[in-house]
Amino acid sequence: MENFDEWFHDILENANITDSRYPIKGMAIWMPYGFQIRKHTMNIIKNLLDKDHEEVLFPMLIPEAELAKEGIHVKGFEEEVYWVTKGGQTELNEQLALRPTSETAMYPMYALWIRSHIDLPIKYYQIVNTFRYETKHTRPLIRVREITTFKEAHTAHATKEESDEQIQDFIEIYKTFFDDLGLPYLISKRPEWDKFPGADYTMAFDIIMPNGKTLQIGTIHNLGQTFAKTFDITFEDKDGEHKYVYQTCAGVSDRVIASVIGVHGEEKGLRLPPKVSPNQVTIIPIIFKKGKEEVLGKCMEVKELLESKGLRVNMDDRDIRPGKKFFDWELKGTPVKLEIGPRDLENNITVAMRRDEEEKIELPLDDSLADAVMDLIEKTQENLSKSAWEFQKEHVKFTEDLEEIPQLVEAGNVVKFRWCGDEEIGKQIEEKTGYDILGIQEEISEGKCIASDNDAKYMTLIAKTY
Amino acid sequence: MENFDEWFHDILENANITDSRYPIKGMAIWMPYGFQIRKHTMNIIKNLLDKDHEEVLFPMLIPEAELAKEGIHVKGFEEEVYWVTKGGQTELNEQLALRPTSETAMYPMYALWIRSHIDLPIKYYQIVNTFRYETKHTRPLIRVREITTFKEAHTAHATKEESDEQIQDFIEIYKTFFDDLGLPYLISKRPEWDKFPGADYTMAFDIIMPNGKTLQIGTIHNLGQTFAKTFDITFEDKDGEHKYVYQTCAGVSDRVIASVIGVHGEEKGLRLPPKVSPNQVTIIPIIFKKGKEEVLGKCMEVKELLESKGLRVNMDDRDIRPGKKFFDWELKGTPVKLEIGPRDLENNITVAMRRDEEEKIELPLDDSLADAVMDLIEKTQENLSKSAWEFQKEHVKFTEDLEEIPQLVEAGNVVKFRWCGDEEIGKQIEEKTGYDILGIQEEISEGKCIASDNDAKYMTLIAKTY
Repeated sequence: MENFDEWFHDILENANITDSRYPIKGMAIWMPYGFQIRKHTMNIIKNLLDKDHEEVLFPMLIPEAELAKEGIHVKGFEEEVYWVTKGGQTELNEQLALRPTSETAMYPMYALWIRSHIDLPIKYYQIVNTFRYETKHTRPLIRVREITTFKEAHTAHATKEESDEQIQDFIEIYKTFFDDLGLPYLISKRPEWDKFPGADYTMAFDIIMPNGKTLQIGTIHNLGQTFAKTFDITFEDKDGEHKYVYQTCAGVSDRVIASVIGVHGEEKGLRLPPKVSPNQVTIIPIIFKKGKEEVLGKCMEVKELLESKGLRVNMDDRDIRPGKKFFDWELKGTPVKLEIGPRDLENNITVAMRRDEEEKIELPLDDSLADAVMDLIEKTQENLSKSAWEFQKEHVKFTEDLEEIPQLVEAGNVVKFRWCGDEEIGKQIEEKTGYDILGIQEEISEGKCIASDNDAKYMTLIAKTY
Repeated sequence: MENFDEWFHDILENANITDSRYPIKGMAIWMPYGFQIRKHTMNIIKNLLDKDHEEVLFPMLIPEAELAKEGIHVKGFEEEVYWVTKGGQTELNEQLALRPTSETAMYPMYALWIRSHIDLPIKYYQIVNTFRYETKHTRPLIRVREITTFKEAHTAHATKEESDEQIQDFIEIYKTFFDDLGLPYLISKRPEWDKFPGADYTMAFDIIMPNGKTLQIGTIHNLGQTFAKTFDITFEDKDGEHKYVYQTCAGVSDRVIASVIGVHGEEKGLRLPPKVSPNQVTIIPIIFKKGKEEVLGKCMEVKELLESKGLRVNMDDRDIRPGKKFFDWELKGTPVKLEIGPRDLENNITVAMRRDEEEKIELPLDDSLADAVMDLIEKTQENLSKSAWEFQKEHVKFTEDLEEIPQLVEAGNVVKFRWCGDEEIGKQIEEKTGYDILGIQEEISEGKCIASDNDAKYMTLIAKTY
């Protein structure tokens, strides 16, 4: 892709994913095809969470008094909060925030719900719209003013150990989620100055987009007892003592879908991972006047066969040239296309095309078809994932030379380097290079810091970020 | 139920459905158990709509200029709209409405999307939160300030005939939806002075709650060309002429869930229709020290067997008295409970109880169990529906005497009467009785109007409404 930003902008509209012409900047419409991708994507994370978490739904508005209670937290958001000040013609007594995130909506209720250690742990999540009054340049699905799809999980625990385990659980859940989407990721611990407002520490998943910029696609925060103290969330422990709970929270958003589109896409259109593609198979009848009924009949038969195996299948019987249909479904990224025409009927075959490969394959139109198609779908899923991970591997470069960072980043890479962990030095590195430290990948015990005489403590990532 | 309103208030909290202690009046939290009921309920309507409609998602905020465009419409809502006036510390140039409903968010986009007759019909729906600054007394799920679950469908057609057919389609869809929930309904055409602001006419579904008050649970509006003219939604027809589209919209909300709870409930708790119950079967192990493992093992085996048949099953293995468990699941309304203890194991039976009947039934613990349980579930579904329809039948009373209406209504009935259709007379009837005309059930050609010397034209319903 020569110009990724342009490609991304165009594909959203051309593939019927979102429409950005809504008359409020940074707020777009999910169109039918995009909505289906969103639905299948969110179903994956819901199923993963439902094993051990419970879905709830909190109100969208937060009273100012609650939002303001946690000082560090509100500082992080106050410039970005939309305020409701009027109901009808009446000025409200207290202004109400459109939730930028729901800690301050939820935690006053946690304080009511949690009384004893037997009420713990609480593991709730919700999928909601949240709002940020973005002053920066907005981009659909990436930097928006209404985050239409914010999955936020909020847990409370009796001990610090359990809260740390919960962080690990979230990391595993997110890994599985992104694996199902064929998305690679870089996991790091955000530097102190970039953690979630109010958190003890923040773990983040970043992905490298085709233009080399990284996009934060998932965050997991250990909140310690900060909010527990602010909102007085205590429990009576087994020993009869009243203690503050330990909390965590974790979020993913629309950006996951932006990544699915961006990372797997190519010049001609989307390449959707089968698990989230609205149609996993698209059947294209090749129709001539003669034998039309037979061809359509066979297509319908194949559709029903594949659907009976649990596949999502559509048949494009529009009265237009087959070439236009191929073009459309390439654009929309259906993993497998099947072509059936009169000659195929005679030979009892169908021509199959995987979206991720040019090759055409003839498959017999018999009982073996379903398995053969399943196989193509699995291979597509694996191959998309493999290519994406390879791209990431090629675009993470290690250097020991601070001066080399800009050149590597501008060439589309994330850069890995050794850092002593000193905050001042870290901020100097950001300032000198003009990029953001994503965070710490791992602790190390050898080598020197890239920007000081100190011993290195951490393998660290820096990138141009969205 | 002696005091329905009190019962309803209590059950929401006791059965873990909603929590109304959120610090904004009229906005409540969906708790885990309630959320599951909501999810299964909305899945039914989604599946019904997905056959012929496409799901989309529009932004939550509407610019004032768009909301104000359709004069009649905005008059109907202006007293109830919440306004966002600030982003961060900045006053916005244009204030933004929290959507009270989405006509004015959607239709400017319809004007962009619709160019030609081949773009029609458009049949979109979304499930979203909407907002009303209610000044009346609020009640959870019934009269709220955040409608968390608003399903709104919006269609556009080339001809008036097609739009009328769409109204019939919506009526059929809603009938199936309410039938699946075991809910009875009264369908009527709202009087002119109570139709949706901007509609040509409004068809409504009302349900009689146990206290005799009716609750509007679904509305379907034929919008004619009113909005099309306001938002300039035109298409080029086959004959090359530019014409305005015909539109319809249809909504259901949280009130459907209020009805499921209210209509089927009884003193001891919920009685959930199996199609929406979070658990369709609850297994209660009867545990003594001796034979504990065997009992739990068998319970797990039965759970897996039933789940393999597609049933939603939970096992309550909490370390508390069985009596408490029975009490809890009666409160929460699981359709079928299975009890398995050491003696049952010896006799190779399980004791089954339907939530809607007192009787206990012994079922053999063998291959026939799944079918037997399925049968109990189906009977529960049918019986809940049957009882609810009988209740409705008993509580719709016909009268020819205007004076008798108050007495009939106060005894918990909806009253049916003959009306000439004259608006002045209709309003007089409302004023004299103090109740609301729900609408017209059917056209009639005999008898006199209940309140004038005119010939009757319509069989009409009047009730005390929520």
